[in-house]
Amino acid sequence: MALLVQKFGGTSVADAACMRRVAERIREARIAGNDVVVVVSAMGGTTDELMRLAHAVNPRPDEREMDMLLASGEQISVALLAMALHALGVEAVSMTGRQAGIRTDSVHTKARIREVKPERIFRNLREGRVVIVAGFQGETPSEDIATLGRGGSDTTAVALAAVLKADRCQIFTDVDGVYTADPRVVPDARRLDEMAFDEMLELASLGAKVLQARAVEFAKKFGVELEVLSSFGDRPGTIVREEVSDMEEIVVRGVAADKEQAKITLQSVPDRPGVAARVFRELAAADVNVDMIVQNVSEDGHTDISCTVSTEDLGRARRAMEAIAGQVDARGVTYDEAIAKVSIVGVGMRSHSGVAYRMFNALAEHGVNIEMISTSEIKISVVVRRERADESVRVLHEAFGLAG
Amino acid sequence: MALLVQKFGGTSVADAACMRRVAERIREARIAGNDVVVVVSAMGGTTDELMRLAHAVNPRPDEREMDMLLASGEQISVALLAMALHALGVEAVSMTGRQAGIRTDSVHTKARIREVKPERIFRNLREGRVVIVAGFQGETPSEDIATLGRGGSDTTAVALAAVLKADRCQIFTDVDGVYTADPRVVPDARRLDEMAFDEMLELASLGAKVLQARAVEFAKKFGVELEVLSSFGDRPGTIVREEVSDMEEIVVRGVAADKEQAKITLQSVPDRPGVAARVFRELAAADVNVDMIVQNVSEDGHTDISCTVSTEDLGRARRAMEAIAGQVDARGVTYDEAIAKVSIVGVGMRSHSGVAYRMFNALAEHGVNIEMISTSEIKISVVVRRERADESVRVLHEAFGLAG
Repeated sequence: MALLVQKFGGTSVADAACMRRVAERIREARIAGNDVVVVVSAMGGTTDELMRLAHAVNPRPDEREMDMLLASGEQISVALLAMALHALGVEAVSMTGRQAGIRTDSVHTKARIREVKPERIFRNLREGRVVIVAGFQGETPSEDIATLGRGGSDTTAVALAAVLKADRCQIFTDVDGVYTADPRVVPDARRLDEMAFDEMLELASLGAKVLQARAVEFAKKFGVELEVLSSFGDRPGTIVREEVSDMEEIVVRGVAADKEQAKITLQSVPDRPGVAARVFRELAAADVNVDMIVQNVSEDGHTDISCTVSTEDLGRARRAMEAIAGQVDARGVTYDEAIAKVSIVGVGMRSHSGVAYRMFNALAEHGVNIEMISTSEIKISVVVRRERADESVRVLHEAFGLAG
Repeated sequence: MALLVQKFGGTSVADAACMRRVAERIREARIAGNDVVVVVSAMGGTTDELMRLAHAVNPRPDEREMDMLLASGEQISVALLAMALHALGVEAVSMTGRQAGIRTDSVHTKARIREVKPERIFRNLREGRVVIVAGFQGETPSEDIATLGRGGSDTTAVALAAVLKADRCQIFTDVDGVYTADPRVVPDARRLDEMAFDEMLELASLGAKVLQARAVEFAKKFGVELEVLSSFGDRPGTIVREEVSDMEEIVVRGVAADKEQAKITLQSVPDRPGVAARVFRELAAADVNVDMIVQNVSEDGHTDISCTVSTEDLGRARRAMEAIAGQVDARGVTYDEAIAKVSIVGVGMRSHSGVAYRMFNALAEHGVNIEMISTSEIKISVVVRRERADESVRVLHEAFGLAG
């Protein structure tokens, strides 16, 4: 008898037939003797339709109202899933984020969970019910509805698992686990049985779209064991958990490419103390998430500062950079949308040397030019032309012997 | 400078273009110097679509979950309408029933408002915002979402007008006021400039679908002046208010037909004290709203008891009646779905005699047979064959000189 948190995404509850299938799955977990808390996203397509409506009445909808609007999508899912469980004879109750005790800060459309008050969930579990919680949403201190931003339902699931001290948080998705690379790009990519939080974190933030990085951070922080598995099959998935020593035997766990990247360069900036700080302070103020940063050596007392940002943030980043350019006497701003970031990840890098060399050499052998480099303890990322991203992933997958 | 509560139904906010038109209308009220609280229903069609989804996953959905599901419809409307107002430069904020302070009892799908805590609305009005409240919903003592049942948005609007001490509660609908009869049935029916609450109450409960009876009761109880007007035109509508003496000069204000009626008869019941009480106690327990009741004179110590119920309640009424039939030694239960109730209404009846005679005589002259009769101080209702209902309305409209 365990307590499970199960999270189902929008494609898993896209219509009535899917709802019934998910309900069957939850019933199986109940029959096996588990207590179950379920987190659901909006039915696939609902969020897009609501966004379309919003933009039809206002090209720049207010964020507080956007949250009010979008949160209704999850409210619909949870009610329907509760009904589907009732139809199978399983006792169940749905809850909005607020009713589930999820309290957030006031940053609309990308709120963070501040606290979970689990009393109502516990009471219902004790009374033998499956508790179905609307993902992606919570309530602010001013009693407004806030949403957690993209992938927020994963975060809801992990936060609940942490607070409820669940035995496992199962993330059901349309893939059956985490792979050594995207199987659409690398046909012989292999499903991983397990991996460390840090590896998942790097992969999540690098564009492997299985799990939201914030959810993984949360899971790591609170020691919540995650399982990524398919809502359509019955196979066990990939377990993401605390690093154990034998995980280090594998140098590279996976290869990922992020094609939603752009490079922006502030040209010929006077090389004075404080300039870089000022640039990145302004970008932060413009709510731009900067990823890689490169500053060339100074020539004639001037330097170029380049960084990568997600294509989504590019517009804001350009406006901010252009404003700064005048203030710091830079020559101008250029940008490049035709790039991709390719990364290898593995906790084994900590104890193995020569990994970067093997990576750069493999790419060089295939004539792939490296434009920027960034490393962390367990990851090496390079920027390449976007049209060579898939090829780079295949080359690295082969070079590190990741195939099954 | 007045405080207006404006209520817009589902057809008034059916799509983005309708939303923008409603927003224009609200802006005009603001420009004219009014404070405005708006109550909105779900976009036309949304509720039906949600019901369809519910029944696709469960033929008999739980009522608490149904409320959770359906309340999302109004949440969508209020957010979109707030955005549409912002697009016109009008400050506005949306609120769920809960956020607007609407507290209900726990009777899901037909909850009653117990209390309105108006602080948040007042604060936003003071800060210069239009406040847009989700109709039809509130929060129960256990912090669940409850809906108020059919026409519940009218009730929300009137309750808010009462608590906020609004100068007027405007109900925008797809007709431009209350008519002496349904203009589709009586081509020369006339729009009324004003009428008394009691008259509206009788008409509302008699099938003139302009306003929900409960909303009118509320308005009467708290002295909220109502205006029924079209959301598509600019003409003033019908004012519904406290009776004043010159209203009595008009004997009959309007004629209404309710075709959603059925008759149910318990045959040959032993004529003993307490039998009728028992019958109607059981019907009440089965949640059946009984309208007219007729008991024939006793023959051989047995009598027939007939009553009318809405066709919606007929199934429950039959099951209850059949259970009772055995217990009270009745011969059986018959029912008749081919009836309609036709009524004339007017506060002037209180001070004028001979009204019933004129009504029955007019119907007799046209060969319409009267099957049941029921009267109140300001209303006379008769049951006729359903296929003669429209003709009866025309005859009575003519007989009482209601044409324009």
